Amino acid sequence: MRLGLVGVGLIGASLALGLRRAHPDWEILAFDRDEDSTDEALRRGLIDEAVALPALAVCELVVLAIPVRQMPAAFTALAPHLARDTVVTDAGSTKQAVIDAARTAFGAKVGQFVPGHPIAGREKSGVGAAAEVLFEGRQVVLTPIPENAAEAVTRVSAMWQSVGARVTTLDAAEHDAVFAAVSHLPHLIAFALVDELAARPNARQLFSFAASGFRDFTRIAGSSPAMWRDIALDNRASLVTELAHIEARLAALRGAIERGDAEALERVMADARRARERWMAGELEHFRDDAA
Amino acid sequence: MRLGLVGVGLIGASLALGLRRAHPDWEILAFDRDEDSTDEALRRGLIDEAVALPALAVCELVVLAIPVRQMPAAFTALAPHLARDTVVTDAGSTKQAVIDAARTAFGAKVGQFVPGHPIAGREKSGVGAAAEVLFEGRQVVLTPIPENAAEAVTRVSAMWQSVGARVTTLDAAEHDAVFAAVSHLPHLIAFALVDELAARPNARQLFSFAASGFRDFTRIAGSSPAMWRDIALDNRASLVTELAHIEARLAALRGAIERGDAEALERVMADARRARERWMAGELEHFRDDAA
Repeated sequence: MRLGLVGVGLIGASLALGLRRAHPDWEILAFDRDEDSTDEALRRGLIDEAVALPALAVCELVVLAIPVRQMPAAFTALAPHLARDTVVTDAGSTKQAVIDAARTAFGAKVGQFVPGHPIAGREKSGVGAAAEVLFEGRQVVLTPIPENAAEAVTRVSAMWQSVGARVTTLDAAEHDAVFAAVSHLPHLIAFALVDELAARPNARQLFSFAASGFRDFTRIAGSSPAMWRDIALDNRASLVTELAHIEARLAALRGAIERGDAEALERVMADARRARERWMAGELEHFRDDAA
Repeated sequence: MRLGLVGVGLIGASLALGLRRAHPDWEILAFDRDEDSTDEALRRGLIDEAVALPALAVCELVVLAIPVRQMPAAFTALAPHLARDTVVTDAGSTKQAVIDAARTAFGAKVGQFVPGHPIAGREKSGVGAAAEVLFEGRQVVLTPIPENAAEAVTRVSAMWQSVGARVTTLDAAEHDAVFAAVSHLPHLIAFALVDELAARPNARQLFSFAASGFRDFTRIAGSSPAMWRDIALDNRASLVTELAHIEARLAALRGAIERGDAEALERVMADARRARERWMAGELEHFRDDAA
């Protein structure tokens, strides 16, 4: 079994580490446009060989672990060489735009592409941040398309399960809406807040008093700018909606503070605290579930 | 030495724990309007006696560790009985409104009140969440008023240092502006986001895909609603300004996404990441420092 890895950053390198343990017999080939990354991955024994991107198209399984806006070009480079038995998947945080790009590049072969999204990450990026256990106990969401053969979905699913992940499936549009709310929006807010404070004339004073609450709230602002720029642009429609929602929420809170509405403030805070406690306790049955 | 504690929640009980170790000979008296809290504090040996609030006014040191909007009534209850040598301090997250309340209640004796703010907390509240080490290595900000005698400030400062805290001082108005930005605003955003998602028809689905980024971003939404409602109302002016700023920032990001401005998005994200890395590394010299 040959696995082709496009991108040996945090996700790609962590996957390689996990697969080394799960499948010591697999041959792992990789391409990264940054040669330093493949050099380091080779040195660490994560991959067997660094090759040109089109050469990966004959592997039984190809995983794209690159920022989502680099995927269209990667699909285009792979497409002409794609072997009949090759299955391609990705690790992108948005799904509809990636599927569109795969459809454009692969045409009639698009069934060989199984879209995926491992819900795992760290605030560090790059091969140096890789961790063998990154996917252990984490969810991987697949958003299969009608053209996918069951065998192709199973192959991708089995790979993620072999590194400890739980695999679930979602419709791609639903995926993008859900992750805009629970992941992409919080990332944007964290980036916005840190940048806002860092740009102020008294930035040094502000940061000198920031404490553990600020540290945890902004942890995700340590994530890869290139990756998150791409996610924001790829998931434009959902994210614009989410931003408008939270702006309205914050404006409403501001109004409650201005008019001294203690009751409204406490209601929001108490509801939020209870919801978070239930979520942390895994008691999801308390939440509304009118989803389609 | 007798220490009087008004409130044996997270902060009060943690302070009692720390002082038990630092000063085993101190007598700790306490009042809490919730008798269950003083009962538990007695059972755990954190305090020596539960007394009526006015009885604390003869202790050498009185610490108010209650939500800031309960402080005016506590000051009023203490004022008529305040011994000449008593020093009163507080652990409130806002300072100007607390000082105003102390001034109103204490009148000519206001110099006996030294305003303070320990920068420590947890997402759990109540005596059960108390931790002896809560203040170890943490900052306590004092915002002395002109009427304070040096000896009074020193007494409060020494108490906090004895439980491991580093004591700094700030002007009260500056304190409120700084903490609106680095603490009160993030708390409000975390509460707002969790409440927004919990109220949606597909809340169960959303929370089922929320992961570690969401968990850390919203950790502070587990904080005490009564405490944070009071902080929001007490620090109204600064917080309204901060909310307006972040709303504008988010609207600007939304605009950048709508027009596909990759450069603007990446600039915000890269600047934020670099600023956070510098802050985490303690390299504050990189930040602007034009504060008055």
